[in-house]
Amino acid sequence: MMTNPHPLRAKVRIVLVETSHPGNIGAAARAMKNMGLDRLYLVQPVDYPNEKAVFRSASASDVLDQVVVCASLQEAISDCSLVLGTSARQRRIPWPLVTPKEAAIKITEHGAGAGDIAIVFGRESKGLKNEELQQCQYHVNIPTSEAYSSLNLAMAVQVLSYELFCASEAATPERVWDQLPATNTDLEHFFGHLETTLAEVGFHDPDNPRQLLTRLRRLFLRIEPDQMEISILRGFLKAVNDATRRQS
Amino acid sequence: MMTNPHPLRAKVRIVLVETSHPGNIGAAARAMKNMGLDRLYLVQPVDYPNEKAVFRSASASDVLDQVVVCASLQEAISDCSLVLGTSARQRRIPWPLVTPKEAAIKITEHGAGAGDIAIVFGRESKGLKNEELQQCQYHVNIPTSEAYSSLNLAMAVQVLSYELFCASEAATPERVWDQLPATNTDLEHFFGHLETTLAEVGFHDPDNPRQLLTRLRRLFLRIEPDQMEISILRGFLKAVNDATRRQS
Repeated sequence: MMTNPHPLRAKVRIVLVETSHPGNIGAAARAMKNMGLDRLYLVQPVDYPNEKAVFRSASASDVLDQVVVCASLQEAISDCSLVLGTSARQRRIPWPLVTPKEAAIKITEHGAGAGDIAIVFGRESKGLKNEELQQCQYHVNIPTSEAYSSLNLAMAVQVLSYELFCASEAATPERVWDQLPATNTDLEHFFGHLETTLAEVGFHDPDNPRQLLTRLRRLFLRIEPDQMEISILRGFLKAVNDATRRQS
Repeated sequence: MMTNPHPLRAKVRIVLVETSHPGNIGAAARAMKNMGLDRLYLVQPVDYPNEKAVFRSASASDVLDQVVVCASLQEAISDCSLVLGTSARQRRIPWPLVTPKEAAIKITEHGAGAGDIAIVFGRESKGLKNEELQQCQYHVNIPTSEAYSSLNLAMAVQVLSYELFCASEAATPERVWDQLPATNTDLEHFFGHLETTLAEVGFHDPDNPRQLLTRLRRLFLRIEPDQMEISILRGFLKAVNDATRRQS
């Protein structure tokens, strides 16, 4: 099982409903992996598994390896908190309709912390049925020329995945900070000081001293402290040292 | 011959260089027509015409019917005043690099009135060669996951065509300019003249003459000179030639 390193994209699944051509499944898997997605759900595929899917997936056969095949759309999306369905046209009862760009923004706003997200694509020939679209919060319409509005299924997956990739990369704002980050040297001096101090004050697990230090390293490294914060921490340790030495 | 009703998109050609798989040509034609483009140029296609292209084009076989097959990239772009080349990676000498969205904005700013526009795509296996990329004003890089950065060729055409469709549907003011932009042929004549002149005056790095020319190409291509400016530059080179020849 792959682990998607991007917290938001790890939550996104692409759901293909009753796909006829296995080549489209493979091409969709490649499009997904190109755009940092890896969770593909197939609802009652007509002809799958099939070697054409593997061939068209190129270097994304790992996405196919972990495909989830479902008996119903309900099964594929029941644990999702945001579901978007692609639709070529507005339906009789209008639904909130978004462009691929807007869909990608909805997904990034929804965020990684709030349950899984599904983007649902219908049959090559006739898309999603009304009752399937009515299970979605939003309908996504890919803008097209009036002269020929029917995109290939995998192309539609490519466009949505691309927009989501762009939006999710942009959604990681650059850290703006008022102090310079601590350097590795700053951190190692701090860890050395911390270890001495832990020993001086007699705080350590005698059965497993190394794991304590490892856990403290992990903690402080994760914080990505700035130089000011390291100074403050070391000032505190120094105060502890002084106090301890006066005592002994 | 179709007549594209959209004035800007009518000026845009998609150029595929040495495509191996005819299916990709057909899929690219479909992606183009979905996004309101219809001018497809093929530079030395490996296997074309081919029924696989027709099959994958679906209802875009009219785009294939009017394909222009060229013997060289030069032939495919010589009358274009804006040429963008797709590239998966940054090259040794960096070129102005744009995202698909930025490329679409460049094209809409360039406008319908100022000469034809080409978007060039390389071989499935290894993209465009350096000398091909150096004929382009801009390099377009489709953002991708680091885990798998190689898009299928027709998918890349889809993404660029989609962005161009979105940008060209949104009304963007055209660039207003008092001179026509230089064509690719104007520029190549200028570069030829420049190279001769550099040799005549003895200005070149004998250890690395090619990089000097590449850097000069990049500089002048980035400027997007108009025809008057090219005349002035060539007038200057001519004056240098005359002065040099009088001396010798």
